[in-house]
Amino acid sequence: MNYDAALDAALNKLHEEGRYRTFIDIERRKGHFPQAIWRRPDGTEREITVWCGNDYLGMGQHPVVLAAMHEALDATGAGSGGTRNISGTTVYHKALEAELADLHGKEGALIFSSAYVANDATLSTLPKLFPGLIIYSDALNHASMIEGIRRNGGARRVFRHNDVAHLRELMAADDPAAPKLVAFESVYSMDGDFGPLAALCDAAEEFGALTYLDEVHAVGMYGPRGGGVSERDGLAHRIDIINGTLGKAFGVFGGYIAASARMVDAIRSYAPGFIFTTSLPPVVAAGAAASVRHLKGDQALRDRHQMAARILKMRLKGLGLPLIDHGSHIVPVHVGNPVHCKMLSDMLLEQFGIYVQPINYPTVPRGTERLRFTPSPVHDPKQIDHLVKAMDSLWSHCALNRAEASA
Amino acid sequence: MNYDAALDAALNKLHEEGRYRTFIDIERRKGHFPQAIWRRPDGTEREITVWCGNDYLGMGQHPVVLAAMHEALDATGAGSGGTRNISGTTVYHKALEAELADLHGKEGALIFSSAYVANDATLSTLPKLFPGLIIYSDALNHASMIEGIRRNGGARRVFRHNDVAHLRELMAADDPAAPKLVAFESVYSMDGDFGPLAALCDAAEEFGALTYLDEVHAVGMYGPRGGGVSERDGLAHRIDIINGTLGKAFGVFGGYIAASARMVDAIRSYAPGFIFTTSLPPVVAAGAAASVRHLKGDQALRDRHQMAARILKMRLKGLGLPLIDHGSHIVPVHVGNPVHCKMLSDMLLEQFGIYVQPINYPTVPRGTERLRFTPSPVHDPKQIDHLVKAMDSLWSHCALNRAEASA
Ligand SMILES: Cc1ncc(COP(=O)(O)O)c(C=O)c1O
Ligand SMILES: Cc1ncc(COP(=O)(O)O)c(C=O)c1O
Repeated sequence: MNYDAALDAALNKLHEEGRYRTFIDIERRKGHFPQAIWRRPDGTEREITVWCGNDYLGMGQHPVVLAAMHEALDATGAGSGGTRNISGTTVYHKALEAELADLHGKEGALIFSSAYVANDATLSTLPKLFPGLIIYSDALNHASMIEGIRRNGGARRVFRHNDVAHLRELMAADDPAAPKLVAFESVYSMDGDFGPLAALCDAAEEFGALTYLDEVHAVGMYGPRGGGVSERDGLAHRIDIINGTLGKAFGVFGGYIAASARMVDAIRSYAPGFIFTTSLPPVVAAGAAASVRHLKGDQALRDRHQMAARILKMRLKGLGLPLIDHGSHIVPVHVGNPVHCKMLSDMLLEQFGIYVQPINYPTVPRGTERLRFTPSPVHDPKQIDHLVKAMDSLWSHCALNRAEASA
Repeated sequence: MNYDAALDAALNKLHEEGRYRTFIDIERRKGHFPQAIWRRPDGTEREITVWCGNDYLGMGQHPVVLAAMHEALDATGAGSGGTRNISGTTVYHKALEAELADLHGKEGALIFSSAYVANDATLSTLPKLFPGLIIYSDALNHASMIEGIRRNGGARRVFRHNDVAHLRELMAADDPAAPKLVAFESVYSMDGDFGPLAALCDAAEEFGALTYLDEVHAVGMYGPRGGGVSERDGLAHRIDIINGTLGKAFGVFGGYIAASARMVDAIRSYAPGFIFTTSLPPVVAAGAAASVRHLKGDQALRDRHQMAARILKMRLKGLGLPLIDHGSHIVPVHVGNPVHCKMLSDMLLEQFGIYVQPINYPTVPRGTERLRFTPSPVHDPKQIDHLVKAMDSLWSHCALNRAEASA
């Protein structure tokens, strides 16, 4: 067996399909978001504007977050030094979990290394708690949910994206007595569209199913206290398990679920991905808790965020660019070809100092390759203007279609 | 379907078997490790000594680590704001990966959210890169390796713990042309015994198998630069993939693999658990890199660590306590019953201010429940003396057997 040859074959496949990923090496400068220093492979540097980050509100440089982190470092040091069960539970972890339970109006919350791990560990543990569980999963659910649902080989059904009628059909075809769970997202991050939460909850209720909602791209940003779309729409009480991240709008790192006390206790007790790993550093928990707490009260920041997104979309639409607009804060521009997409991204970076990563397969389906912009309250009018003009000139220069995929 | 009743049943099972876990809530005090403040559920506090942490060298309070973290916070803020591919690769991540590749003498390294995720993501991705891969796994491998090996339903064989003859037997029974991988650990954390690395490498070589080594409980602590047992024994070049953590001896958080450039590139490109998640905060990467760099040069700290372990073991043995001693830095004392184990732990905490978590099933097999002590260079002679006297008095008080399980 020639292992090296097998690795080369796997890598060549990516090169041939134009979807080999090269990571751009950047350092954001605190106090100057969204500006960053890009270090080229040859070591030379250039100042750029980050237009594809998921620190949606710029909380990663917020003084309350940084102060909490400096303080925790000084008080308790770097890491936790243990798993949650073996010396790794600190007052910082408990405080963060209390903050998150309160955010979603749930009895409890449980933090994980990331929202990826929270999805994977929780969804793969539920079939142990509810033998025979059937999981109904939206076709566009995130990789971490898919991995968790697949992991233990339990029963699963995939319903067409946001298609509640299809979900009903699938549930109706299964044993009415079987335990069921419907898993979906509130904001789908690559198209920026919303899940039909109320209709999904109705269907779940009708068939006696639990509901599982990934609010990763909504927490901090939607709802009067940042509790996500389920808070905005007054539906949190109808969701059995809410999943969120501390690494996007909250600007730090880590993930969690919020649920009833007994659900949290059971996942805490049975999920290997929660049990057998070092707990988050207290400094991370402290920063995240400060961010969650702050955003409960900062509606103005959320308003500025939505405003930035509306302005960018209006201006790109004015130029007739093929925008995908579902009314959320995410601004994808359709390209439809992995090589063009990479080329546009390279030109924006080199010629305009604008950093937007090309989004290619497998993150999105082939043929739907795109540039995905994430305007934020820290992007000022001049930066928006610079981006719009750059896109206009590239679209003309490359003779790309306008408004071909507007939706 | 009554979901609450199912959750109650799952939780009651743990209560009945005496293995329901209650997390102890502590805050270590920087500059005073291993001392910490324990907060009881009723809110009262007590100063305690942590005897079960995995910050084995006390690096979590080391000035070089904390300085690097404060600096990174000031320079670049809290989180990375993206996945590695989408705006989340920073100079801090690159520097840490270079430090780790150098530590193990490998061409490359790749960091993950944790060593748990590194094991799970890597081991579950290898069968995609080597179709038909058979994984041979030591029976006592960590939960994260087991989860990774199981995830995609690839072929797996479990060999008896440290039994190279059994491994050979299993490999001999399989198709000689099939791609193979042997997965094992260098220090098994619950017994503190070493894997027979050289013999395992010989067997793997004979059958044309790759080798995968979890050095989570050895990196930083063994080898002249902290490269683990594989460095100490001059075997790193015979290990194809080395896995380590940044959350134990390095005192921070995160995990990694080190391997050939093409292996790293392939895992980077194909592992969902690496691709679809926010990258480690730059502040964590900066602290970890400082710790790894420091420990490459601080053999004296490693020596003091081993000395502390030898002294504690000598003294506990002198009292005839049932110590499990395999010559590593881990000091397990056999109890053999989950209820006794929990009771001893409670008494140590309440009566003596000594915190050692009971280790029960499923972390160890039933009937082998134990107290697991982790002496470190920051435990001083008075703290060791206090622990030894406390154990002596409890063993007499509870009329427990002495030396029944010495091994
Ligand atoms: C052998 C072994 N491998 C991997 C891990 C996971 O490491 P981490 O805490 O970085 O997830 C652990 C413990 O946590 C372990 O004991
Ligand atoms: C929908 C969704 N869920 C979960 C995750 C994982 O979150 P985290 O970055 O905290 O692992 C992501 C992206 O990273 C995501 O887009």
